[in-house]
Amino acid sequence: MSEESLTDEDLREIWPVLSADERLAGFHSLSRAEVHDFFLGLSASDQAQVLREMPSAERRPWIRLLEPDDAADVCQKASPAEREELIALLDEHARREVNALLAYAEDAAGGLMSPRFVRLRPDMTVDAAIRYLRRQAQAQRRVETLYYAYVLDGEQRVRGVVSFRDLFASPGDRLLSEVMHEQVITVPEDMDQEAVAEVIARHDLNAVPVVDSEGRMKGIVTVDDIVDVVRQEATEDIQKLGGMEALDTPYLQTGILAMIRKRAGWLSALFLGEMLTASAMSYYEEEIARAVVLALFVPLIISSGGNSGSQATTLIIRAMALGEVGLRDWWRIVRRELSAGLALGAILASIGLVRILVWQALFHTYGAHSARIAAAVSLSLVGVVTWGTISGSMLPFIIRRLGFDPASASAPFVATLVDVSGLVIYFNVAQVVLRGTLL
Amino acid sequence: MSEESLTDEDLREIWPVLSADERLAGFHSLSRAEVHDFFLGLSASDQAQVLREMPSAERRPWIRLLEPDDAADVCQKASPAEREELIALLDEHARREVNALLAYAEDAAGGLMSPRFVRLRPDMTVDAAIRYLRRQAQAQRRVETLYYAYVLDGEQRVRGVVSFRDLFASPGDRLLSEVMHEQVITVPEDMDQEAVAEVIARHDLNAVPVVDSEGRMKGIVTVDDIVDVVRQEATEDIQKLGGMEALDTPYLQTGILAMIRKRAGWLSALFLGEMLTASAMSYYEEEIARAVVLALFVPLIISSGGNSGSQATTLIIRAMALGEVGLRDWWRIVRRELSAGLALGAILASIGLVRILVWQALFHTYGAHSARIAAAVSLSLVGVVTWGTISGSMLPFIIRRLGFDPASASAPFVATLVDVSGLVIYFNVAQVVLRGTLL
Repeated sequence: MSEESLTDEDLREIWPVLSADERLAGFHSLSRAEVHDFFLGLSASDQAQVLREMPSAERRPWIRLLEPDDAADVCQKASPAEREELIALLDEHARREVNALLAYAEDAAGGLMSPRFVRLRPDMTVDAAIRYLRRQAQAQRRVETLYYAYVLDGEQRVRGVVSFRDLFASPGDRLLSEVMHEQVITVPEDMDQEAVAEVIARHDLNAVPVVDSEGRMKGIVTVDDIVDVVRQEATEDIQKLGGMEALDTPYLQTGILAMIRKRAGWLSALFLGEMLTASAMSYYEEEIARAVVLALFVPLIISSGGNSGSQATTLIIRAMALGEVGLRDWWRIVRRELSAGLALGAILASIGLVRILVWQALFHTYGAHSARIAAAVSLSLVGVVTWGTISGSMLPFIIRRLGFDPASASAPFVATLVDVSGLVIYFNVAQVVLRGTLL
Repeated sequence: MSEESLTDEDLREIWPVLSADERLAGFHSLSRAEVHDFFLGLSASDQAQVLREMPSAERRPWIRLLEPDDAADVCQKASPAEREELIALLDEHARREVNALLAYAEDAAGGLMSPRFVRLRPDMTVDAAIRYLRRQAQAQRRVETLYYAYVLDGEQRVRGVVSFRDLFASPGDRLLSEVMHEQVITVPEDMDQEAVAEVIARHDLNAVPVVDSEGRMKGIVTVDDIVDVVRQEATEDIQKLGGMEALDTPYLQTGILAMIRKRAGWLSALFLGEMLTASAMSYYEEEIARAVVLALFVPLIISSGGNSGSQATTLIIRAMALGEVGLRDWWRIVRRELSAGLALGAILASIGLVRILVWQALFHTYGAHSARIAAAVSLSLVGVVTWGTISGSMLPFIIRRLGFDPASASAPFVATLVDVSGLVIYFNVAQVVLRGTLL
């Protein structure tokens, strides 16, 4: 690594693959102008790591560079002992703010908000408000945004909001109570961050005030924080859909042991579930012994159920996460997925039928009863695909009804569920269709 | 539906499940105060639908309510004939803006930007700039944000940016060239929206200027547009990971035929791939006939490979989408996933070993050679899980190297790939371990 010529962009690019020593060296090699922006642009866990790796005497200016909500995030990422040390480095005022923020769950509105917003009084004039904003801008102390100012009453309750544009567009002698917007959308401090993101996205807001149970305003969540939330929640959902626990850190920064732990749990659970296929198969051992040809289609049939189930569960989970589908829609979805499943099953059944008959004509692969075998496979496919589609679409509803995250209804989970029932469907169809011939 | 008592929140809630007529009735039942916000809060495709469903004489005020970038989005969602009609309803100036925006791909920076931003000159004083902003605020014509103003030279090139806060904090007689930030991050007009989101998220920006190939500023993309982009891109990736084409519309608003089309393509392709398992199995037909017990573990073994592959591919695809992992990291990832795969394989192998030996002790399920069968299954599990993990992690690299979207390396795709090779591994291990006994 040539440290001399490193720009902040270069460092950002190679950051994930550097060792701790290299990171610190790279960090110190940046110019003074670059290093502040670079530090502010890091994720909270990277900031915590940089602080951890630098000599403790150097930490103070860096932690003080952060806004209170970002400093709180860094403290969340640090060990309890480090957290105490870091908080002690803050000035009195920031320390109180950070401690208040740390009392919230990291993924609640309260954990996401900044306590630094502009407060105005309803009986101020527009001119007085502009003067006040100007003083805030010139003061050293930073607020999260100057674009919106919140008009609070004596009990800190939100009476209205004015944007900088509203102030500029209004005559200077009007009262804020006359020019403010009174319909303010707020979120409670314990609202989950995913729901906050939903509110902000739905109403196209740039910021939303956070209020406590008595309606007092505690802070604001701005839309730029929401971008991170949306990305993070999507990552968690995607990882759960892939059949594992969500990683808490970027892939390359997750230790190999932590990663194996996150993956082994679900993999073992799915394996235990999948063992039922061995039991199901041994129940039909005699049939297989009599007609080995039946065994040949087992992977094809159960995977078709798994794949169609994976499609259905993925669609429903994402629609739930986006608020497009709620628990009350389940019956509509059963009907839709029943049609979809039957249609998809019929398509695969036709392909399967053609494949078996063509192979038989060309290579005589499947013996004297190939037509019946083709019929058994095709019929089973219709059943298995329809069943996979229905179970895949309903599993997220059941899991959510039980109070868990529907994203746990991962594609592998559905596939495992459908494998066992797929075998039962297949062998029962085969018993009926092949009775008196092979079985 | 009781239309009398409907609020905009209620309507928003039930919107996805309403018929076209109910939507229009609901829309008209809102009060004048509510209906504007409600319309502006709809997605572009819903706005297009509302416009389509209302009598054409009523459309003009609604399309004119939209910002040019939003009006362009609505036109994108309309049919070419409707598009012409809608554009004709705009005033001269907006029509030019919308036509310019429609020339860009919908998912490029140019298609996402607003052409309405505040332009300043470097030789203006701070006071003059504030007066100009105030006039902009009071003018009827709206700009996307007044918070940032862009300082352009005579060729419309970005020389700097000032925030409203900078202006307020600076003495009134200073020139903008002295107070502006000269390090402006810009994005090219043809940059993909996912990359624009990445730039905005990485640098924690509230807005980013879009420039053409000669560096002339064409518009700005603001962070609130990015929230929608991030959600939409995550949805597309999740649907592809579920083994289907991405839907273009919300689940409940997608017609049943369109949905079957989106799902049938991949499902059929996977089915054709999975047919290779029938060929692979028939290659080992003789072994199965001699030792039917081997067939019992086929679903267990191939699904373990599929599940571990699904985990690996999901992790890598998401890390790629977030820019945490690039093509050049492939060798690092092979090494990581090799260790992870061996460890996970060993865990499943131990569970499998215990299961077979315990069942044998309790029920004598697996006959005289149960120990060897257990050994064959366990050894195969190590091989299949390791192979599944490696192929699952490398497939996104291969697909991306070929120039396709790595998210197409869906969990079902990987499972299908691994199923065939899993069978080959299993039967070959069994041939070696059971030689001279069962086989």
